[in-house]
Amino acid sequence: MEKYDVIVVGGSAAGLTAAQTARRHYPDKQVLVIRKEEKVLIPCGIPYIFGSLESPLDDLIPDGVYEKMKIDLRIERVIDVDRKEKIIKTDKGSFGYDKLIIGTGSYPAMPPTPGHDKDGVYAIIKEIPYLTEMQKRLKSAKNVVVIGGGFIGIEISDEIKKSGVENVSVVEIEEHCLSQSYDDDFCVEMEEQLRSRGIVIYTGSKIVSIDGGEQVESVTLADGKKIVADIVILGIGAVANADLAKKIGLRIGLTGGIVVDRAMRTSDANIFACGDCAEKVSFFGGNSSALRLASIATLEARVAGANVFGIKRETPGTIGVWGTAVGNLALGTAGLTEKMAKAHGYKVISAVNESINRHPGKLSGAANVKIKLVFGANSGILLGGQVRGDASVGEIMNAISACVQNRMTAEQIAMFQSGTHPMITASPIAYGIVNAAEAAISKMVEAKDRS
Amino acid sequence: MEKYDVIVVGGSAAGLTAAQTARRHYPDKQVLVIRKEEKVLIPCGIPYIFGSLESPLDDLIPDGVYEKMKIDLRIERVIDVDRKEKIIKTDKGSFGYDKLIIGTGSYPAMPPTPGHDKDGVYAIIKEIPYLTEMQKRLKSAKNVVVIGGGFIGIEISDEIKKSGVENVSVVEIEEHCLSQSYDDDFCVEMEEQLRSRGIVIYTGSKIVSIDGGEQVESVTLADGKKIVADIVILGIGAVANADLAKKIGLRIGLTGGIVVDRAMRTSDANIFACGDCAEKVSFFGGNSSALRLASIATLEARVAGANVFGIKRETPGTIGVWGTAVGNLALGTAGLTEKMAKAHGYKVISAVNESINRHPGKLSGAANVKIKLVFGANSGILLGGQVRGDASVGEIMNAISACVQNRMTAEQIAMFQSGTHPMITASPIAYGIVNAAEAAISKMVEAKDRS
Repeated sequence: MEKYDVIVVGGSAAGLTAAQTARRHYPDKQVLVIRKEEKVLIPCGIPYIFGSLESPLDDLIPDGVYEKMKIDLRIERVIDVDRKEKIIKTDKGSFGYDKLIIGTGSYPAMPPTPGHDKDGVYAIIKEIPYLTEMQKRLKSAKNVVVIGGGFIGIEISDEIKKSGVENVSVVEIEEHCLSQSYDDDFCVEMEEQLRSRGIVIYTGSKIVSIDGGEQVESVTLADGKKIVADIVILGIGAVANADLAKKIGLRIGLTGGIVVDRAMRTSDANIFACGDCAEKVSFFGGNSSALRLASIATLEARVAGANVFGIKRETPGTIGVWGTAVGNLALGTAGLTEKMAKAHGYKVISAVNESINRHPGKLSGAANVKIKLVFGANSGILLGGQVRGDASVGEIMNAISACVQNRMTAEQIAMFQSGTHPMITASPIAYGIVNAAEAAISKMVEAKDRS
Repeated sequence: MEKYDVIVVGGSAAGLTAAQTARRHYPDKQVLVIRKEEKVLIPCGIPYIFGSLESPLDDLIPDGVYEKMKIDLRIERVIDVDRKEKIIKTDKGSFGYDKLIIGTGSYPAMPPTPGHDKDGVYAIIKEIPYLTEMQKRLKSAKNVVVIGGGFIGIEISDEIKKSGVENVSVVEIEEHCLSQSYDDDFCVEMEEQLRSRGIVIYTGSKIVSIDGGEQVESVTLADGKKIVADIVILGIGAVANADLAKKIGLRIGLTGGIVVDRAMRTSDANIFACGDCAEKVSFFGGNSSALRLASIATLEARVAGANVFGIKRETPGTIGVWGTAVGNLALGTAGLTEKMAKAHGYKVISAVNESINRHPGKLSGAANVKIKLVFGANSGILLGGQVRGDASVGEIMNAISACVQNRMTAEQIAMFQSGTHPMITASPIAYGIVNAAEAAISKMVEAKDRS
């Protein structure tokens, strides 16, 4: 039986990153990844299979890194783990391990709605044959209903519309699409963008049944309205795939994920877990967090991979940083929105800045970028930021994430040393992150003058 | 005689930002800006006047903010200051002040080269009539030589070439263009980009004379080579305009700027200075810095403006963050290059990461982005970062700047919580800042194993 120093179960964002990190930190150790998929999909790229890309095969995580980094790879199904003997059993054989990292990911959440098992109802299952069949069915579809107006829901609806489907509707149970991650004004801008691209949106709307015979024919909303549907797509979130962990008796947490400490150790000191399959705590207050994102998975994997032979890193908890884009409109968020911060019990001061991301604004490629920063009113510390604009949103949200992660105050952000250039950023006078912080400080000054 | 609580001399990046900051922090105070220009040019936009824009009038800092923020504006020339009586004298009258902020900017540096005063030799003087005339002359020029391959030199040469001038040459005294701000491999990529766009580059070349009669006809290099020139443009840097400060007896520093403390106070406690006219210290070690950038000016202005009625802020010194772009190639830098860090006396560990800024890479708009991070080998602290790529470089350099400013270690950056999205960033597995930090940590691990 082959024996490895480190075995990683799962080859997506968490598993691959954990293996790479272990390799980097322990160059002399033998590292093996066992995954069940012949080829692995880029999870966040799945919506784009249905419009911008040709097929699921255009959306793969490249495997070249395995050879390059001397990480062994087996395509096998893990059946069981003998924790006492430290042996992994797969459908094809057994491997001894010293340290084990579990990165088994998530399943799409399924609603309790009657009819969700009808033919023509799809969830976003990260498997190539499933998505290939779904893509084929969509080519002849006329009426598609997407349940859930989160980022997967809106991205997939736009891609399907772009690909030529006549009627695409999104049904969202909350007051606004994306309301878990953005304050209302940002959500409204995205809804307007979707509507302008021909997508019908129902917000504050619950689906009570998915109707039809064997094949789906329509969905019914709580207010009685029926929407015709050849295809229904479920985009209501993800739940941890902790099947293996449960089977082998690891502790499971409140949200159904594998319980881990800040070093990503499970209840077995030789087994680590990371990514969607692991329980998460928030960066803000340390409470349980249900957020599941590939970027969080890679952070946790960098912690787990570095720690297998002695703790080097501890996660400070999940900030929650991610973007979404529809056409030329992108949104980004890092940390808490104003709504979320208040729900967390913070007293907040927030401020918004809008500026053009070229200077002068007549230069080509100029777009208006809106930045909202939310500060704790008592501490002055940045709790989160939201951005609306063009593709530059991606790295602006990362600059904001760096500020959140360092728990910078408004005063410290006002002293941010930005770099600027006419062709690629806003002017230094108008630089958004700094000016939003200064606007928040103005409010703090006013509040102090008043008291 | 009118009396103001705060008078700012100068209306460019430093002056305008200082006035805005004073207004925000002291809403009840009267703030006046006195500037000599009817309209103020965006300094970094000047190269684009000669190609991408139509005229200098397309490159103006908008004046709307004065009314919006209730800042008074006078277009007058400041002649003198009576520091004892606290009175400013202009060519049109006098104003009393309580606090004074000087933001008089810089002059272009002039080389000692014989012939630099010939007709047809231009410096980048930030005045509309001057630049308008220069633009007119360039329209009929066939041979332009740009002296200095810094960012202004390369940007202006590309714009002039784009506008249709047949022969454009850049002469740079150092081994590479941009070598003050980038390590050689980055400089070489920009040189290749310039050459591919038809610009002739002479590096390691000193100009010994600018030749001709009254009108410039050619330049002569140290190796004897002559380059024909109808127009010569000097882009060799900027020197502080401290004329007023000298006249009124403020202390002047090593690089010719007004001496200020970390609160931006001059040797007169009621007078502050900021921007190109002020002396600067480096964020790294606190030594004198000759770097003059609009982004530094605005940082200093946010310090000066906030401090006029009591110290609230102190600058940690100049990081030096800026970008440049030629066609679809952009470079960004924050902090020290490897070369500079070594010259500063640091033992360094650096690492490079290249990745595609979309995922999958087949999505439209994908570009390869290279990131180099330079860490102090003893401390593990980030000293600087360089980026090469498309327009996304602008905000990536700002994310790196946030890491520098917070003196983050490689380990902390490896724990960076990036936000990602297929259409606007690299994948979370490949995210550049994080992976460059991890690559540096690998080197640190290896170095430790060896010792």
